[in-house]
Amino acid sequence: MKPFGVPLISVSRNLNVGDWEVTSREASPGSPVPWSVRKTRLHGGKQEGVDLIAIDNGRMQITIIPARGMGVLSARSGDFKLGWDSPVREVVHPSFIHLDSRGGLGWLEGFNEHICRCGIEYNGHPGPDTFTDFSGRETTVNLNLHGRIANLPAQEVEIAVDPDPPYRIRIRGEVCERTFYGPRLLLKTEISTEPGQNGFRISDSITNMGSQPQEFEIFYHCNYGQPLLGEGARFVAPVRRVTPLNARAAEGIREFDAYAGPVAGFQEQVYCMRLAADARGRTEAMLRDAAADRAVSLAFSIQELPCLTLWKDTGAPEDGYVTGIEPGVNFPHNRRLERKAGRVPKLGGGERHSMTIDFQAHEGRTEVRSLEDRIRAIQGSEPPVLDERPEDLA
Amino acid sequence: MKPFGVPLISVSRNLNVGDWEVTSREASPGSPVPWSVRKTRLHGGKQEGVDLIAIDNGRMQITIIPARGMGVLSARSGDFKLGWDSPVREVVHPSFIHLDSRGGLGWLEGFNEHICRCGIEYNGHPGPDTFTDFSGRETTVNLNLHGRIANLPAQEVEIAVDPDPPYRIRIRGEVCERTFYGPRLLLKTEISTEPGQNGFRISDSITNMGSQPQEFEIFYHCNYGQPLLGEGARFVAPVRRVTPLNARAAEGIREFDAYAGPVAGFQEQVYCMRLAADARGRTEAMLRDAAADRAVSLAFSIQELPCLTLWKDTGAPEDGYVTGIEPGVNFPHNRRLERKAGRVPKLGGGERHSMTIDFQAHEGRTEVRSLEDRIRAIQGSEPPVLDERPEDLA
Amino acid sequence: MKPFGVPLISVSRNLNVGDWEVTSREASPGSPVPWSVRKTRLHGGKQEGVDLIAIDNGRMQITIIPARGMGVLSARSGDFKLGWDSPVREVVHPSFIHLDSRGGLGWLEGFNEHICRCGIEYNGHPGPDTFTDFSGRETTVNLNLHGRIANLPAQEVEIAVDPDPPYRIRIRGEVCERTFYGPRLLLKTEISTEPGQNGFRISDSITNMGSQPQEFEIFYHCNYGQPLLGEGARFVAPVRRVTPLNARAAEGIREFDAYAGPVAGFQEQVYCMRLAADARGRTEAMLRDAAADRAVSLAFSIQELPCLTLWKDTGAPEDGYVTGIEPGVNFPHNRRLERKAGRVPKLGGGERHSMTIDFQAHEGRTEVRSLEDRIRAIQGSEPPVLDERPEDLA
Repeated sequence: MKPFGVPLISVSRNLNVGDWEVTSREASPGSPVPWSVRKTRLHGGKQEGVDLIAIDNGRMQITIIPARGMGVLSARSGDFKLGWDSPVREVVHPSFIHLDSRGGLGWLEGFNEHICRCGIEYNGHPGPDTFTDFSGRETTVNLNLHGRIANLPAQEVEIAVDPDPPYRIRIRGEVCERTFYGPRLLLKTEISTEPGQNGFRISDSITNMGSQPQEFEIFYHCNYGQPLLGEGARFVAPVRRVTPLNARAAEGIREFDAYAGPVAGFQEQVYCMRLAADARGRTEAMLRDAAADRAVSLAFSIQELPCLTLWKDTGAPEDGYVTGIEPGVNFPHNRRLERKAGRVPKLGGGERHSMTIDFQAHEGRTEVRSLEDRIRAIQGSEPPVLDERPEDLA
Repeated sequence: MKPFGVPLISVSRNLNVGDWEVTSREASPGSPVPWSVRKTRLHGGKQEGVDLIAIDNGRMQITIIPARGMGVLSARSGDFKLGWDSPVREVVHPSFIHLDSRGGLGWLEGFNEHICRCGIEYNGHPGPDTFTDFSGRETTVNLNLHGRIANLPAQEVEIAVDPDPPYRIRIRGEVCERTFYGPRLLLKTEISTEPGQNGFRISDSITNMGSQPQEFEIFYHCNYGQPLLGEGARFVAPVRRVTPLNARAAEGIREFDAYAGPVAGFQEQVYCMRLAADARGRTEAMLRDAAADRAVSLAFSIQELPCLTLWKDTGAPEDGYVTGIEPGVNFPHNRRLERKAGRVPKLGGGERHSMTIDFQAHEGRTEVRSLEDRIRAIQGSEPPVLDERPEDLA
Repeated sequence: MKPFGVPLISVSRNLNVGDWEVTSREASPGSPVPWSVRKTRLHGGKQEGVDLIAIDNGRMQITIIPARGMGVLSARSGDFKLGWDSPVREVVHPSFIHLDSRGGLGWLEGFNEHICRCGIEYNGHPGPDTFTDFSGRETTVNLNLHGRIANLPAQEVEIAVDPDPPYRIRIRGEVCERTFYGPRLLLKTEISTEPGQNGFRISDSITNMGSQPQEFEIFYHCNYGQPLLGEGARFVAPVRRVTPLNARAAEGIREFDAYAGPVAGFQEQVYCMRLAADARGRTEAMLRDAAADRAVSLAFSIQELPCLTLWKDTGAPEDGYVTGIEPGVNFPHNRRLERKAGRVPKLGGGERHSMTIDFQAHEGRTEVRSLEDRIRAIQGSEPPVLDERPEDLA
């Protein structure tokens, strides 16, 4: 059988299929688990004109936002929601976002995804960075929080379905950060899942389309609120070393992996970590609820994603009770600091960096326990080093 | 009879009804005055995609712009137009507005409404303001002129018609200024009129949807040009005290309530006023033409809107010959100055501030005279204090 | 016969005809050369919602972008393409452009046109400019690279076809740079061609719609890559004087009119020129390929466009191998420097400046030779003055 594949949004074909749907009947009739993919357009307020692509693999519903850099809005498995309740309610169209506004914090006006990429030219805290631009000039520019990629519309979005079992469903897209006299970085993403799977995979690559070497940064801002997050919830990963981002985070270094319930006015705490991995470089991080009955895990390679940032922001529910697990090539300091620390990689002309993360929902104590055991095994007997003080990057 | 109500634009229902119309026949057949409401979409240039909602109550046509924060573009009663002729001709879609551009004056590129709200996080002159953000950090941000609300698209826009006489027609909408790590202010507005009425009402509330206390500012920039404005036109209100905004305004303090004809190159003059009110706190301000034959009045409560700003900008017609009557909770100084003066109110988590303004057109000398008498009665025998110098806020 | 004319995009008529087409059969049946004009809408990524208007005059295809200030995306005559391959691939909708971003270089994120106007309030390098605004205040604003006009959507776009031979096809449009308390500059453009012609004409005017005097700046950024540009290609014009823009350009002053092949990492060189003209003030500039077999020429009046800037940016093809021939009223220094040099003209209230450029493709050595002879005749025996150093504007 010919593999099923359809372009949904395409610059090269000058195409947006509009509202659209496909089911397993048409695309993989052999699949024992029925599934569907729907593309719908949002209306009203700041979400006018935003398209969503929702994969229902028969067990989990995964919703992708092409207009917001192919971020993942949410994943849901029955009443088990992966994601969070941001005070930002609509799926904001990028044309309403001004990244440089609010002193470089404009990004926050659209922030409500389960998973959004930060990057890819730069991705850390706002503020000035001085660098040599591609024409050899030294230039100083105010970088905005978390970069541009989450507010850029995708092109070459398509669905492809494997013709053979397990009939993997793949949504692909491209998002470009490119400008004349500046970076030409192409993000290619494939978000895929198997019918019946309680999870999904993100496989990305970043390619330097220019002729000159170019820095890049990326981390995946993966955000979880209730029901996973709550008093007694726990972050579990094979941590080798954890460093508080700032003095505020240092206050909580002893309990960096534990969560309190919502506290109105809570001030965020951010931890920068290095993880252990298995022989092939694979590692896993998890967030489990207080009862150890539900969890989400992220599995990835520390060669591809050597840095893990943990963000704790357990304020009042109406302000966004949330934690972020953020695998990346760097930590979220401003790029001038990350460069100093040697954590801003470069791609030569035509070069590419690839990354894959497997997201899995876990339900039931047995499954959660088994996941935790797996992570403890990677940790081994070596306890994490807890730094009392932030990294000195001044 | 079941009350008539239809959602027109809704995020929660993922809806925009597009071009749409209703008449009294369907919605209030009992109404002795036929009326209609039409929603139409604009095209061309910077107005591509902007919707207008036009209420024709049988006497007055009131046009609302959901995409521009539910501002009122114009009101017209026969050949009596309330509003002005701005050099900005199209109804500019917010995606073409960059509030931070032109040194914080980007707002002016879309400014042509009869009534637009300035606010609601801040609303004064552009420039730096240092404040404690909601996570407890002191931060300095360049505020843009007149805030964001007039360039944010509305959601939950609906029409509702009272089932009983006088069959009031209500257009409601919500506009949010919300961001993660920042204000969560919700403006709810209802713009309503009665069939056959030569006026309309704006009833607004601002609610702090977050858990932490939050400042807000608002004034209503209500603008009038010809035919009301002209040489000899007059502003009439029960003024207790009037203070020039700056040295330029101080030059004209003696004639703050009088208007000259258009003068090319005229430099604006702005006056900050406190008004007297009746026993219930209600007050009225009016602008009448030279012949005292036509007038517009704004009636409101000084508890809800304690500040009134008068803006005189009587330049050449092609530059926008106009005056603004601007009831608000504050004056248009930059927020750092208004805060110093104690005029930036705060809302606790979940708290709300409500405001209502009644706009009325008056035609014929008798009606205008009677309005003026009413205002003189509120003024009483106490003459206004005219400050020779601007407030000292340095 | 009644002249053929149809509005395509109009604010005053509230109109956008959407996808649309006309052919010579309907519009000028007498034309011996069949032609067509098509309006199509683009989809995908950052080009969602951009309309293109493509004139096929039977020999040359000329594509216009109303949403990007009536720029000319490309002109093509068989396999002879006038234009270039920018690393920016889509035709970017202005709502995705933030001119003030990247330290004022946001303009570059949409730059890929064959011809785009830079201006019209200002058009040079980014940076602060202090000027007296129209209300008499001295103000300092950071200007963005190349101004706003190329990222403003047109209105009153229409097609008109002459009823008589040679049945000239005209696409007209208006683009406004206007704001309250600021400039009110109206660009009217007509891009026209004759059936069968291997070229086209741009006739523009800029009008000050305000009452007060207003500065303006404009140059036409006309860009050429392969096949014209290549090692051995040559710029030919009757140059009276050529001044390097900066030290980098000064390095190449002896070969300012010669081109090398692509060199990865090449740093741009810019030359400011004054041209000779014939008795009527007309002059011509050309770019020809190495074989002197193909050329493009721009013919214009030095009264209308007294400055010519030559931009050489012969980097790697993937970075945009390109040269720009840029007739204008000024050079591309920041406006504060151009003002100092006396090159920022002013328009009084209601005044207008008109400009016409004829673009012509030339194929075959005979035609190219004859063009070059014409230019040499204007040059006469007076050789160009080559300045070794940039203009001193400090």
